[in-house]
Amino acid sequence: MSLEKELLAWLKENLPPSGRLPVGLGDDAAVLGGFERAGVVVTTDMLTDGVDFLLAEVEPRRVGRKALGVNLSDLAAMAAEPVAGFVSLVLPRQGSGRRSALELAIELYRGMMPLAEQFQVEIAGGDTNTWDGPLAISVTAVGKTTLRGPLTRSGGQVGDQLLVTGRLGGSILGRHLEVEPRVREALQLHADYQLHGGIDVSDGLALDVARLAAASGVGAVLELDAIPIAEAAERLAERSGRSALEHALGDGEDFELVLAAPDQEATRILEDQPLSVPVTRIGELVEETGLWQVEADGQRTVLAARGYEHRGDE
Amino acid sequence: MSLEKELLAWLKENLPPSGRLPVGLGDDAAVLGGFERAGVVVTTDMLTDGVDFLLAEVEPRRVGRKALGVNLSDLAAMAAEPVAGFVSLVLPRQGSGRRSALELAIELYRGMMPLAEQFQVEIAGGDTNTWDGPLAISVTAVGKTTLRGPLTRSGGQVGDQLLVTGRLGGSILGRHLEVEPRVREALQLHADYQLHGGIDVSDGLALDVARLAAASGVGAVLELDAIPIAEAAERLAERSGRSALEHALGDGEDFELVLAAPDQEATRILEDQPLSVPVTRIGELVEETGLWQVEADGQRTVLAARGYEHRGDE
Repeated sequence: MSLEKELLAWLKENLPPSGRLPVGLGDDAAVLGGFERAGVVVTTDMLTDGVDFLLAEVEPRRVGRKALGVNLSDLAAMAAEPVAGFVSLVLPRQGSGRRSALELAIELYRGMMPLAEQFQVEIAGGDTNTWDGPLAISVTAVGKTTLRGPLTRSGGQVGDQLLVTGRLGGSILGRHLEVEPRVREALQLHADYQLHGGIDVSDGLALDVARLAAASGVGAVLELDAIPIAEAAERLAERSGRSALEHALGDGEDFELVLAAPDQEATRILEDQPLSVPVTRIGELVEETGLWQVEADGQRTVLAARGYEHRGDE
Repeated sequence: MSLEKELLAWLKENLPPSGRLPVGLGDDAAVLGGFERAGVVVTTDMLTDGVDFLLAEVEPRRVGRKALGVNLSDLAAMAAEPVAGFVSLVLPRQGSGRRSALELAIELYRGMMPLAEQFQVEIAGGDTNTWDGPLAISVTAVGKTTLRGPLTRSGGQVGDQLLVTGRLGGSILGRHLEVEPRVREALQLHADYQLHGGIDVSDGLALDVARLAAASGVGAVLELDAIPIAEAAERLAERSGRSALEHALGDGEDFELVLAAPDQEATRILEDQPLSVPVTRIGELVEETGLWQVEADGQRTVLAARGYEHRGDE
């Protein structure tokens, strides 16, 4: 039996039964229903050995989790409800370490499955290949817009306050593999408050804020003192020669959300603190395009949109 | 400027303007509209250097065309209208031959674009990466069902006639790179005739017919004399030591359609010959499960479901 056939048999046994898919695994394509009043939201991200993870050093389950997680984070950035995931694998023919290619594939799926269950994502299809190269995983996630429509990068307006969930920086110490996509947080905020724009922090806070501002045709000012710094950024700063703030601004793979909300709504969110993670005001959108920083003394200067440009989303 | 940013700029300039996408390239995800009364059909296929093509020997445009084409062929097998394509690339960091990684990416897209235009597929998103490994391309295609719903592998019934479009075998001589997805043919037949089931011939006629029969819970008999053999299969047979018929049965990557239609409908299709390619009756679905062959003398024996199991669709 071919690897793909074996894997498909394993998946059919191990994936939870699907009630939502008119046509699921095992046909030429999957058919997803329930989009009557919703836009279809699609995002895709490919992760590769040596760039996004080091297969020799990390459990493949964590790699699988990350591959699905980064895509769910993109759906969160659009305030879309996850529906289905499609997984294309190209596996090293000889497997990895003591694992055969099939065992490696199963471990990758085992890493995805808890996240899929948590966010009610159906693993609805994919493609499995082997070759003489290293491991690459491409996941496409499909979601649907809520009644409020999608949250976009381009919706920000001058005067909007910039909010961020959670804390930033130092994800390389582990959090980059343990993506906690802010899907529920995005849906809750998008339903209960008026938001203008959003983006997830995948490539670095400064770079992703700059992208949101540019897509919205405005500028952004970050208040450096206000940026919530992750404990991991502090730890990393002790040995990196860079400050914790620099890590928070440029590290990427935090998978937190940056939101642009009108002043009054932002104030409500900050007072309500409706999420299980903190929401912090980090700056605002301004007329003058570009990315700016304000330091404690109130002086506004240009801030470099540093971050990880390579693995960015289109 | 990063490769991804440069490529995105090139795409925005070179892709035709999109009227159909509420949110297109440049956000965290794309939003597709127009699915009010339609099912969302999603398929994904990954092609890799050394397995699905040899980048050292073939123009990257043809590789790009194939990467999109195989996915459109899967949509055709479901009788779905193509809507959008999402392209994830992992490129060799140094490019290929004289081409830089960016030039390689652009050539791949240049191969996809005529096919996208022909079938009104929006290139709506993707992800671009580089690494020290070979080229891999993962394309996800999204389509929508027509009013008749999807055509599935599992819809075949005992007594259905098996029809195939075009001619089979020898695709390795060139046709495997010049995929002509049978999208229009599938939509036309699905609209004008009653079809029970369908699959595209991606991994070999015998194997794909066996898959359709198995998914339908029935068996299939192929009439070996009736199988339309491509001229390329004849040419290949002259030097392969295998017969042209064997090539037609097992080669794969023909990207023709196999359809299961009730007797009367099959007769109408065969008489009408409504497509620009021939439609040929090659056998029928029977109660006894498994794959069978009937030779000229009428004897029925087991037929091996040979084909290319590796790159199959889930």
